[in-house]
Amino acid sequence: MTADELARGGVLVVAGTHGNERNAVHLLPRWRLAPERLSPRGLAVSFTEGNPEAIREGRRYCDRDLNRAFLPALLEDPTQQELEVRRARDLLDTWGPRGRFPCAVALDLHSTTAAMGNSLVVYGRRPADLALAAGLQGRLGLPIYLHEGDPSQRGYLVERWPCGLVIEVGPVPQGVVSAAIGERTEIALAMALAVLEDAREGVLRLPERLVIHRHRRSLDVPRDGSGKPLACVHPRLQDRDWRPLRPSDPLFLALDGRPLSWEPGPQDPEAVWPVFINEAAYEEKGIALSLTEREVWTVDPEWGLALSTLAALLLSADDGNKTRLAVEKTSRPGS
Amino acid sequence: MTADELARGGVLVVAGTHGNERNAVHLLPRWRLAPERLSPRGLAVSFTEGNPEAIREGRRYCDRDLNRAFLPALLEDPTQQELEVRRARDLLDTWGPRGRFPCAVALDLHSTTAAMGNSLVVYGRRPADLALAAGLQGRLGLPIYLHEGDPSQRGYLVERWPCGLVIEVGPVPQGVVSAAIGERTEIALAMALAVLEDAREGVLRLPERLVIHRHRRSLDVPRDGSGKPLACVHPRLQDRDWRPLRPSDPLFLALDGRPLSWEPGPQDPEAVWPVFINEAAYEEKGIALSLTEREVWTVDPEWGLALSTLAALLLSADDGNKTRLAVEKTSRPGS
Repeated sequence: MTADELARGGVLVVAGTHGNERNAVHLLPRWRLAPERLSPRGLAVSFTEGNPEAIREGRRYCDRDLNRAFLPALLEDPTQQELEVRRARDLLDTWGPRGRFPCAVALDLHSTTAAMGNSLVVYGRRPADLALAAGLQGRLGLPIYLHEGDPSQRGYLVERWPCGLVIEVGPVPQGVVSAAIGERTEIALAMALAVLEDAREGVLRLPERLVIHRHRRSLDVPRDGSGKPLACVHPRLQDRDWRPLRPSDPLFLALDGRPLSWEPGPQDPEAVWPVFINEAAYEEKGIALSLTEREVWTVDPEWGLALSTLAALLLSADDGNKTRLAVEKTSRPGS
Repeated sequence: MTADELARGGVLVVAGTHGNERNAVHLLPRWRLAPERLSPRGLAVSFTEGNPEAIREGRRYCDRDLNRAFLPALLEDPTQQELEVRRARDLLDTWGPRGRFPCAVALDLHSTTAAMGNSLVVYGRRPADLALAAGLQGRLGLPIYLHEGDPSQRGYLVERWPCGLVIEVGPVPQGVVSAAIGERTEIALAMALAVLEDAREGVLRLPERLVIHRHRRSLDVPRDGSGKPLACVHPRLQDRDWRPLRPSDPLFLALDGRPLSWEPGPQDPEAVWPVFINEAAYEEKGIALSLTEREVWTVDPEWGLALSTLAALLLSADDGNKTRLAVEKTSRPGS
């Protein structure tokens, strides 16, 4: 999206894009009641449940993963009518950059069964996303998973907004509301809004360097001909997200009790940093963990400029309420 | 079941009665390949997946909770055709005490998102069950949840076998295979079989006392009129299964940040010991935790006698194979 495509809009906070990730969903009523606690400098923040039907059923999704459904070709194909495709269209019609309550930034709140701590996922290298992530890392030290170059995993929600990222907190079981996980989610969300407030007010300060963990490839456990797993994550690798895995380190534990160690392929770097180790929902995607490479980047001033340009157009809470009233007068009520 | 109802039979080990509790399911091929590692003194042990369809779908169940479906009235009603009711009938037809491969003991392997550690669940006060639990507690110190007097939760699998209990290991997220949880499950299972081997050989020794945590009642979080939770488990209570909760201790954390403390009702004892704190699957049952009372019982010699009488009739692995061959010659293959 180029600068002249930018328009005035609010910030969208999405909870429960996956219906069994319940911590942000649990806190939505609290945030809706007092948004000024999250954004004391008065950004227009809209909150929505990502996948209300899946939340009701306590499942990740009903027909397909909503956070892989934001593919333009899918959304524009009228023959595609799965629940999550329809919900993706709804979300864009309502809160998209050209929606009825336009939003310029999307913050998508997730949890994971992996020991990811409080972390960020950025999709690709859009300058405004990198600035937002750098601002968050500068303030809270959050690790960043840069997801790119993975043709098997595409169609993420935040990619359809001019700026956005995923806040990913774990470990927490699917379906469990944990006070500690909720608190960490809220801290990261409030800090993301503070970075946007700084950018809107022209006082954004970014660190000089950004540490990112760049996606390289994903590994699955070995399986038999019928797809049954012949091993599980090795206990010495479990919960070691964001820590280096070196050649010959234990990777999996085979059913017969033998350890299977990590042996890099010709394309792999010497050390890799695994993330999303043993995330329950990735079993069906054939992912036992993803391997990243740790890189230290110099923060490019253009990133901060991109975020500040976009943030200068962010609506205030008052403007947001006026827009909402105007839209409600002329159209059907928002979802 | 009285002594003269007892017949020769094997031991049934059930994995994946809930389809998203995957640790025992993961280990089934290993156990099937070398059952003598689990039962070196040669009991006839049969292994089965409890709910193969739910395992395939990665869900607790398809139509209804299989581990609440073993109600005689339900099983005997031909109009009841839900998947789990049919599966319960199948399991009994195949492995029940009068099934094609008769089993006298059922060990049902579960996992939980609660920090229950390695623990046992016993349903009611059948002497043989109490002896098996006492034998396990004597060897491994496992805590025991005695589930009784709860009319809202009935129809457990093991109740339909002459002797049986649940091995419940946690915390582990639903859908996750954890090497550590699998190892604990295997240790408890092997020890249960060792107690049965002792009983069969007439050398069963039980401890003098049994510590049980007897079910009193369950608590749910407060909810609004539409059923949405207004609080979650307090972070200071989370992971404190099996530890005393005293009046005024924090119980829940309200959405507005206030702690809600435990205030016993007139029927409650001074101290209660919570179990299954924040088990994900119990949300739909309206259970945030269950309260138990800790009691120390003198082990009754009758219990050991009941278990030894039953165990004396347990088949050896060789007998079991002969039965299997005989049945397979005359009927359809077992499930």
